[in-house]
Amino acid sequence: MEWIITAGATSENIDTVRSITNHATGALGCRVAEHLAKQGGDKVSKIYYVCETSAQKPELPCVEVRLVHGAEETADTLRQLLTSRPIAGVVHSMAVSDYTFSAAADIEKLATVLETHLRNGSLPTGRKLRALLCESLIGPSCLSGGGKLSSDVEHMVLLLRKTPKIIGMIKKTAPTTRLVGFKLLDGVAYEQLIDTAYTLLLKNRCDFVLANDLQSIRAGCHTGYLVGPGRTVARADGKTAIASLIADRLLSFF
Amino acid sequence: MEWIITAGATSENIDTVRSITNHATGALGCRVAEHLAKQGGDKVSKIYYVCETSAQKPELPCVEVRLVHGAEETADTLRQLLTSRPIAGVVHSMAVSDYTFSAAADIEKLATVLETHLRNGSLPTGRKLRALLCESLIGPSCLSGGGKLSSDVEHMVLLLRKTPKIIGMIKKTAPTTRLVGFKLLDGVAYEQLIDTAYTLLLKNRCDFVLANDLQSIRAGCHTGYLVGPGRTVARADGKTAIASLIADRLLSFF
Repeated sequence: MEWIITAGATSENIDTVRSITNHATGALGCRVAEHLAKQGGDKVSKIYYVCETSAQKPELPCVEVRLVHGAEETADTLRQLLTSRPIAGVVHSMAVSDYTFSAAADIEKLATVLETHLRNGSLPTGRKLRALLCESLIGPSCLSGGGKLSSDVEHMVLLLRKTPKIIGMIKKTAPTTRLVGFKLLDGVAYEQLIDTAYTLLLKNRCDFVLANDLQSIRAGCHTGYLVGPGRTVARADGKTAIASLIADRLLSFF
Repeated sequence: MEWIITAGATSENIDTVRSITNHATGALGCRVAEHLAKQGGDKVSKIYYVCETSAQKPELPCVEVRLVHGAEETADTLRQLLTSRPIAGVVHSMAVSDYTFSAAADIEKLATVLETHLRNGSLPTGRKLRALLCESLIGPSCLSGGGKLSSDVEHMVLLLRKTPKIIGMIKKTAPTTRLVGFKLLDGVAYEQLIDTAYTLLLKNRCDFVLANDLQSIRAGCHTGYLVGPGRTVARADGKTAIASLIADRLLSFF
């Protein structure tokens, strides 16, 4: 059986030297790959490990690393794998960028655009104003998104747009593939963490969602809650125990 | 004699999981440390190597790594070293973030703020409009910069502000310390590259500025031009030759 594990951070280019990234290292995804291979035996013939170059990667004979850059390429790679291979399960531990870069502008220039419209009596309201703001940031009167941004602007405004949610695409593309999603929050109460994870599970038809909180990771004791159907919760402490729990539950389907 | 080499990228936090970073690896700074130690002999008793955790670091007995995060901490660390130690020279190869994060806002909310002012007839122009735009992005009506940003906004606007130029502070803090600055451009003509580097040299009282272009790095042949007083230029091809040239010119002062 073939599996997919996504791991680590994705980064989105702002220009040729800068990017927006997040701090995920791939350590947990790496551990899941190791446990899946160890606990799975014959059930694991191949693991496609989808990550950026910076991520930790497992060194196992059954692992084939598929390098990607950014959310869009990650989505393309997953879609291609899910439609061309019989994938038993996906562990989507990757911290995919929520936003990608659209445009940049000096705030001075944004003000100038608004001012011109104001003086002409043509400054719109409502939806048209929002569209104008987007256009002003993208338009030729402001800095372009190509090449290297100027390093000499006092207040730079970046416009970001939402990336497509990869987790929502997985079951739509491969309805019988098992899916473990991940939800990382920062400093929320236990009930809120589990509720958010369960909502994610229902929305994206995950079989399980691993819920965790940055606070426990920072404190050095990474606690994971594996939320399942009917809002059942299994707790594991430490990356090794979390990885083992995920592998165990996934393999129990087969 | 003691030296400072800064290397790699700095990154600026957007929230607790995201940051803006650049792609510098520290490979060249690492090579400079090695050549300075090898070519310097007795002239090099210690190298303070200032970088973020992600950077490549030289493994040499004379190297003391000083880990930093972000432009501000880098500036603080350099200031502290320059005022407390007799530093012979600084090789400032680090790609310091030009911008740090100020605030984030949903573009919808920015439009709402502008609209309210427009309806009240209180939308200002000129400098006051620019101030209002900044305030609207920072103000309580918009998303705050603390915690973790919402991942569910269609168009997110980030406001960035310029970081203090570290290279300008070095000679002001330690006037007799030798200084090598770096200038990386992307796809410019030779004359423009050298001019920009020489302007940087004059402005910040560098002894040398290493000028290089991303195009040559991408093409696999990293060409460096060491621009010196009177706009003299020495060329070196490849990171090893560049590092050796920088070490040689720096050591010739002593």
